[in-house]
Amino acid sequence: MNNIPVGILGASGYAGRELCALVAAHPRLSLAFATADRRRGETVRVRAPLGVAGRPTDVTFVATDDAPLGDAALVFSALPHGASAEWSRRAHAAGAKVVDLSSDLRPGHLTAELLASFRAPRSALAVAALSAERSALSAAEATIPYGLTEFARDEVRAADVVANPGCYPTAILVALAPLARAGLLAEGATVVADAASGVTGAGNSPREDLLFGEVTESFRAYGAGNVHRHLAEMRATLGALGADVDLVFTPHLLPVARGILATCTVPVTAAPADALALWREAYADEPFVEVVDALPALADVQHRNVVRLTALPVQGVRRPTLQVIAAIDNLMKGAAGQAVQNANLMLGLDETAGLPR
Amino acid sequence: MNNIPVGILGASGYAGRELCALVAAHPRLSLAFATADRRRGETVRVRAPLGVAGRPTDVTFVATDDAPLGDAALVFSALPHGASAEWSRRAHAAGAKVVDLSSDLRPGHLTAELLASFRAPRSALAVAALSAERSALSAAEATIPYGLTEFARDEVRAADVVANPGCYPTAILVALAPLARAGLLAEGATVVADAASGVTGAGNSPREDLLFGEVTESFRAYGAGNVHRHLAEMRATLGALGADVDLVFTPHLLPVARGILATCTVPVTAAPADALALWREAYADEPFVEVVDALPALADVQHRNVVRLTALPVQGVRRPTLQVIAAIDNLMKGAAGQAVQNANLMLGLDETAGLPR
Amino acid sequence: MNNIPVGILGASGYAGRELCALVAAHPRLSLAFATADRRRGETVRVRAPLGVAGRPTDVTFVATDDAPLGDAALVFSALPHGASAEWSRRAHAAGAKVVDLSSDLRPGHLTAELLASFRAPRSALAVAALSAERSALSAAEATIPYGLTEFARDEVRAADVVANPGCYPTAILVALAPLARAGLLAEGATVVADAASGVTGAGNSPREDLLFGEVTESFRAYGAGNVHRHLAEMRATLGALGADVDLVFTPHLLPVARGILATCTVPVTAAPADALALWREAYADEPFVEVVDALPALADVQHRNVVRLTALPVQGVRRPTLQVIAAIDNLMKGAAGQAVQNANLMLGLDETAGLPR
Amino acid sequence: MNNIPVGILGASGYAGRELCALVAAHPRLSLAFATADRRRGETVRVRAPLGVAGRPTDVTFVATDDAPLGDAALVFSALPHGASAEWSRRAHAAGAKVVDLSSDLRPGHLTAELLASFRAPRSALAVAALSAERSALSAAEATIPYGLTEFARDEVRAADVVANPGCYPTAILVALAPLARAGLLAEGATVVADAASGVTGAGNSPREDLLFGEVTESFRAYGAGNVHRHLAEMRATLGALGADVDLVFTPHLLPVARGILATCTVPVTAAPADALALWREAYADEPFVEVVDALPALADVQHRNVVRLTALPVQGVRRPTLQVIAAIDNLMKGAAGQAVQNANLMLGLDETAGLPR
Repeated sequence: MNNIPVGILGASGYAGRELCALVAAHPRLSLAFATADRRRGETVRVRAPLGVAGRPTDVTFVATDDAPLGDAALVFSALPHGASAEWSRRAHAAGAKVVDLSSDLRPGHLTAELLASFRAPRSALAVAALSAERSALSAAEATIPYGLTEFARDEVRAADVVANPGCYPTAILVALAPLARAGLLAEGATVVADAASGVTGAGNSPREDLLFGEVTESFRAYGAGNVHRHLAEMRATLGALGADVDLVFTPHLLPVARGILATCTVPVTAAPADALALWREAYADEPFVEVVDALPALADVQHRNVVRLTALPVQGVRRPTLQVIAAIDNLMKGAAGQAVQNANLMLGLDETAGLPR
Repeated sequence: MNNIPVGILGASGYAGRELCALVAAHPRLSLAFATADRRRGETVRVRAPLGVAGRPTDVTFVATDDAPLGDAALVFSALPHGASAEWSRRAHAAGAKVVDLSSDLRPGHLTAELLASFRAPRSALAVAALSAERSALSAAEATIPYGLTEFARDEVRAADVVANPGCYPTAILVALAPLARAGLLAEGATVVADAASGVTGAGNSPREDLLFGEVTESFRAYGAGNVHRHLAEMRATLGALGADVDLVFTPHLLPVARGILATCTVPVTAAPADALALWREAYADEPFVEVVDALPALADVQHRNVVRLTALPVQGVRRPTLQVIAAIDNLMKGAAGQAVQNANLMLGLDETAGLPR
Repeated sequence: MNNIPVGILGASGYAGRELCALVAAHPRLSLAFATADRRRGETVRVRAPLGVAGRPTDVTFVATDDAPLGDAALVFSALPHGASAEWSRRAHAAGAKVVDLSSDLRPGHLTAELLASFRAPRSALAVAALSAERSALSAAEATIPYGLTEFARDEVRAADVVANPGCYPTAILVALAPLARAGLLAEGATVVADAASGVTGAGNSPREDLLFGEVTESFRAYGAGNVHRHLAEMRATLGALGADVDLVFTPHLLPVARGILATCTVPVTAAPADALALWREAYADEPFVEVVDALPALADVQHRNVVRLTALPVQGVRRPTLQVIAAIDNLMKGAAGQAVQNANLMLGLDETAGLPR
Repeated sequence: MNNIPVGILGASGYAGRELCALVAAHPRLSLAFATADRRRGETVRVRAPLGVAGRPTDVTFVATDDAPLGDAALVFSALPHGASAEWSRRAHAAGAKVVDLSSDLRPGHLTAELLASFRAPRSALAVAALSAERSALSAAEATIPYGLTEFARDEVRAADVVANPGCYPTAILVALAPLARAGLLAEGATVVADAASGVTGAGNSPREDLLFGEVTESFRAYGAGNVHRHLAEMRATLGALGADVDLVFTPHLLPVARGILATCTVPVTAAPADALALWREAYADEPFVEVVDALPALADVQHRNVVRLTALPVQGVRRPTLQVIAAIDNLMKGAAGQAVQNANLMLGLDETAGLPR
């Protein structure tokens, strides 16, 4: 039955469009509304995302102010950083579960004040409409879970509000988390994560530096010096997994539309005989993590909700060091795909429902 | 006067073609011969390289076996690794100075036996034909200089044979050398250099994995695990400059035609601000090194014989660490341009003659 | 029931790979064998094509000589032009139905001799194994149908052997056929079809002129002067539809991986508005033809088995003239997709089974 | 002597930047001012254009309102269509010669009223400052010349104001003009010109449809139906050359930065071989027109002020028909390069001065 209504705030950006496509083709979800302020009133034809069977649907954007938040069992917010938190709060207050794709609710950004605002009583009507297991965030809940799904399934299942991870953090944390959890990251060591993203990671608001003529045949770092917005959530998550390392993360802009490749150089406390075994084991049962022998390429993961990665020992250095290389589609596992993965759990559905593998 | 004859071995590859173009437009050099075995007999029109004024020239390829080595005052070898050394030796024996663009004569590849082969007496005729300052390699010469020009001017000026650096090493060593020379690289520290190159770095021999359809919209590492052929020359050069570090180098393949960007994360022994000042000073008078504030992009350096770079302190880590980001055109400063730069010095010409900046 | 065995000859080229993917994900077909001579013995993982749901399958290539032709109810031949006809004949003789993707059996290439070779008695065993409706090509059959499906459904359904159209002809003929059939093409008029294709149209055999470095940032015609191999089948088909026009067709090479756009300028005998109305009506019920108002782009059709097209009157000219612009994915509707569409009909399945729209 | 001051209005767009680069490296021109309203006060480093020797220069943009028009002997206006004419008029009134790169002053756009506005008396001071041969536009001048240089040298040399041709018209008219002038275009015939341009043709104002993510791997027509702004100047020029044909022109958007390829299908009144000979002869002495045997590609002309073209007979059609295929760099011969070519003539300089071939 295709009957759980969900809404999408900020549906005309790249992540928002991908959400529309995933929801339109989802076997259990239906689209209650999709907002896009600059394009309100416009109707677009949404095709099933590549890799998912489904018929095209017509979606008419409404203004965010006009979104019937209470009509949705769950709301995805793909609004810009800064604007998103307030709308997630309103959707929550209106009785909807929320997956917020912005950085606003992620570790390092979520303030105590902001968290408290989600604890305010929701409308009686809205609350009454909730099914039993969907209680409002209670005082007992310390925070809003960070939805790196593979490492937060139980929290996500129980949550009313989830902060969806950033695209870079998804790739890098899935690469590093097994080492962190196994205690193999040397205390105080420097982990270097150089990563490169396709341009859809920067959104579809017109900017001169993202015009085709400026991007084609070029390549550059941005946010060098270890200052990118995504560092906070990576540091917090590595810390939560027990690692005490210095992370140096440098993003680069690729002349491709979609995809992120992260190359991580990681000092470890012991050199495993089989570098890959640790990852293979950690992810043996994960439907959306592919541990492979070959070096992953963007072309391997585009339009798929997976992290594809490999690990290998670094030769010719004194300290035991591993290299982990991970590829994702920044709009899928790095944004809309993982958001649906989380929504599936929050709504009691099969985690893989409606997702391209 | 446009009258110093030079020859090019392996002139139909990407670097060879760029050499043809540079020589054809050079104010003091003329092309004595250009070899291309598979395309022998073919005539191609060579335009002045972008950034250099000059009229187009027609070049007819000859077989390498038929090259009149003795007619050239200097021979560039852009033959493949493995095949190049022997032809460089022959050119040298025939009385020509040599710039070898392959890895065969570079530190880490040059064997004692190979070096000795260059010391054999050259033909009396050939030697007599040399001008006074062009003495044959004498026993006093311990080795063939590694032509990272900015760090080997005197050796290059005095040399009859020069090993032209690899493309990646040019970018990475220009980034790191001032720190190495100043003793600022922490002993035993791990320096991570993640670099990405356009596809011309892999040559123009037909390979399925380099077809447009395979490269466009993708990105991947290759030679991961710290095993690339270029490591030997980088390690040797850093060692010669007094640094005792572990270098981790990972090359990546970009969907662009030309250019290399190297992002280096470097633990240093001084306060970052001091290291930065010193590093900037090192290149104050270099005609082919551009130290800039902005992050360099491939589009800034394509078709130019420069290294464009910046450095900045890494925030939020415990150990003082710099990031140095360098961009070059792999066919120019990374191959043919630097080869001409070296040839200019070897022939007593202005170092910048005929080179696009 | 997933149980009609099909085989693929020439499965490692771009069209062959796409066939593997379509067959692997097809609800009613299973892969009996896949041949690739240079890669025999190699196992590749085949994912469902984008746009089709399905699990990845491992396919091991065998040599074409070793293909168990008789095990397949239907064989697709994606072998090169020249080599394909003979293998299609053998597959047919072994009792399989055949979709030949090469030009060998298409109008203008199919000789009387070649046609006759398909009429030879097939092995008794093989014939006996055929289901009742799958009679061998009989003398009554004048030729092998040209499988432009929308215009040859009945012939294809009844056929044992079908010649799958070329990629350019698919786009151009779907654009022109309704006008031809309605007698709206002026006798003796010149129809100009300029078309551009992504590089996968040229196959994945390594060629220097198809390397990324040669194709990126460029664009060029090839086969100018109206001499392309595909002209014969377009002329024959237009003639068969009753049109007596001169077709001028010029193919161009685009720096994209997939897709063909054809821009056709067409003198017509009726008022443009009337011609347009008629033309739109022709495709009202076609599942794989999208008539749209907007100008179609390659991005609209990639990975989909559709022709997307629009027509509009040409302003400011004396003779009534239409412009018809059509976009297809050259590997889908232009090759593998249409081949499966034809196979579906030949096997009595739903025409749309297993095809991404 | 590097001492003729010129000014550039609208210097921060793609054509304006190319003009800055050409002027900065020009042997006889110097930059008096460069305007860019949104970026006023900004200083940019301008390098010699690829293909021209010269040192980088720093250029500081001023507001157009603040441009010291009277300080320039010649002003280039690269302002947008609609805004340009008025500023060209002001520059002319201030005593400067003018090359206007917009469509405002081209045939089909230039109104009698607008033309008259250029005939108003210029300031006495300004006029006095003009050298003798630079008389103001007199009543005797019927119009502002259309600066397709190869066909308007005398008019351009004598003019104070020149309308620089559009990028598409430059390619298409250079392809067709020799046939028109020789009376070889059949009266009433339909000439089809399908052309494709890189994205810099659309300027660098941020637009969502020109973002890298929207353009890469796609291709589409725009302005179909024969309605593009450039048709007027092409029709007028063909008419002025004596041809009475219907031109059907369809522009397409390529995923490349620079370059235009035009494929023209042309019914002719003579045997194709004769037409070809004539056509080749027409350009025998032109420095910026390359007639070649091979099919021209964008990569052949990028960064060069040339039209590269070939012609060949169309096979298999009843009416004698030629195909002419022409490639240009839209920013060079299609805009800034031709503007400098015209300025060279207007200022009595060598036509080829400072232009990359």
